[in-house]
Amino acid sequence: MMRSLAGRLDLCSINTATLGHREPIGRIVDAVAAAGFGGIAPWRRDLAGNGAGRVARRIADAGLRVSGLCRSTFMPAAGRAEFARRLDDNRRALDEAALLGADAFVIVAGSLVPGSRDLAGARGQVAEATACLLDHARASDVRLALEPLHPMYAADRSCLNTLAQALDLAETLEPEAASPRLGVAVDAYHVWWDPDLPPSLARAGASGRLFAFHVCDWLVPTRDFLTDRGMMGDGVIDLAALRRMTEEAGYDGLVEVEIFSALDWWRRPAEETLRVAAERLQSVC
Amino acid sequence: MMRSLAGRLDLCSINTATLGHREPIGRIVDAVAAAGFGGIAPWRRDLAGNGAGRVARRIADAGLRVSGLCRSTFMPAAGRAEFARRLDDNRRALDEAALLGADAFVIVAGSLVPGSRDLAGARGQVAEATACLLDHARASDVRLALEPLHPMYAADRSCLNTLAQALDLAETLEPEAASPRLGVAVDAYHVWWDPDLPPSLARAGASGRLFAFHVCDWLVPTRDFLTDRGMMGDGVIDLAALRRMTEEAGYDGLVEVEIFSALDWWRRPAEETLRVAAERLQSVC
Repeated sequence: MMRSLAGRLDLCSINTATLGHREPIGRIVDAVAAAGFGGIAPWRRDLAGNGAGRVARRIADAGLRVSGLCRSTFMPAAGRAEFARRLDDNRRALDEAALLGADAFVIVAGSLVPGSRDLAGARGQVAEATACLLDHARASDVRLALEPLHPMYAADRSCLNTLAQALDLAETLEPEAASPRLGVAVDAYHVWWDPDLPPSLARAGASGRLFAFHVCDWLVPTRDFLTDRGMMGDGVIDLAALRRMTEEAGYDGLVEVEIFSALDWWRRPAEETLRVAAERLQSVC
Repeated sequence: MMRSLAGRLDLCSINTATLGHREPIGRIVDAVAAAGFGGIAPWRRDLAGNGAGRVARRIADAGLRVSGLCRSTFMPAAGRAEFARRLDDNRRALDEAALLGADAFVIVAGSLVPGSRDLAGARGQVAEATACLLDHARASDVRLALEPLHPMYAADRSCLNTLAQALDLAETLEPEAASPRLGVAVDAYHVWWDPDLPPSLARAGASGRLFAFHVCDWLVPTRDFLTDRGMMGDGVIDLAALRRMTEEAGYDGLVEVEIFSALDWWRRPAEETLRVAAERLQSVC
């Protein structure tokens, strides 16, 4: 059963990337709360220099829930020392997610080490690093959300590229968990094209691994590989159908707006972007 | 068992798009033959105005095999009249492929009708149109190669986005064929990222549906969605591993070079592009 978002911005969250990281996190927290949203998803850069504890208090004082902390350092590395360094960095990030009380720590896996063509090797490193992080996540009481990225990012940002692939990894590393710590983040931009989406969503829901749901839109034409994502309703994704599938599969967390848009929304005042996102969440999502 | 391409350019073919469609097809045919390639894959635009029969003779006189004819008109349409018009156009293209003796007619399916978000509907139209074309292909003794395109083209160029999806369609429309007329074109650029590639290639080979194999490379960064593909060896795809998998699955046709490169190779003389392609086929593919 799909929830209605009309009048229910408390079910919605704003990923701070949507506002372009142009203003101090304190001001962004206040703006998101003032616009009526129920949650926020900060990036590690929002915490750096501010103290994660201080940001956590500011978010809590504003009455906001943390739908996720973005994101892992890319995992694959050219050598074991660098692999270990990245893993340590991700353990620290996970501790920050715990401090924030985040619904999940978002894992964007990384992919080919520069100069390498070994995609299978990168996937192997991601599996190894995720297994290590999972141990730390259990100790810290944090959930890890593997976010498969669109295959257009397979070379340089993530070697996890479909929901089924992310679920395969989760089920391999954490089989038959009653209350899994390793799940997935479903981002409309990354998965909308997938012909296997309906069975994959059902599978993720059945095993209790739907930890996050992100919305934005796919623009036609898309002018930039990374930063030309659209406001919900401005592109071609059937977001209402996707949310219905995700919620009927069992997702009951926040609906998080995450839009990378250097060409459009990052040039507008935060209040305008928040206002339009609120409208679109209630009308097209 | 993988073939060696060293000294075997007769096993290789040049898709005319690689040379940027800047010169008359007659000159391109001569240049491809003079460079030692065994085949060529023309586009319908190469035939338009020249007479398909005349081009077919020119190619045959040059001693070249036709590894494929590119490509279908996009199939999904806003209404039944337009759907029928596109289907008729594809039947005419199929007749041209027969005249050329092409190894396959390449189907790039098309996707969302402008203004629509109905991806499932587009996929349904593609299935219907392909079924109709298959009847015509049987009568014309032509093979149809469904080419799954990279998911970055899911909105506007093809709603067939994985090899498994294309095979599902082929097996649905033409189950248990001893000598299938409906198969797939495997293009490295479109499929290299796919975590299901090994089983999908094996499945395609086992059912005799590997009709074409295209190579180019994925550049990092990629600067344009359509026309910034790389020469083999200049990007991150492990082309030798991919060709090995494809040939071990049973592919024994030509290795076709298809590179869309407005920013680089289309600016160079055809002879230079052909010379470098020949070198790279023998050293990195």
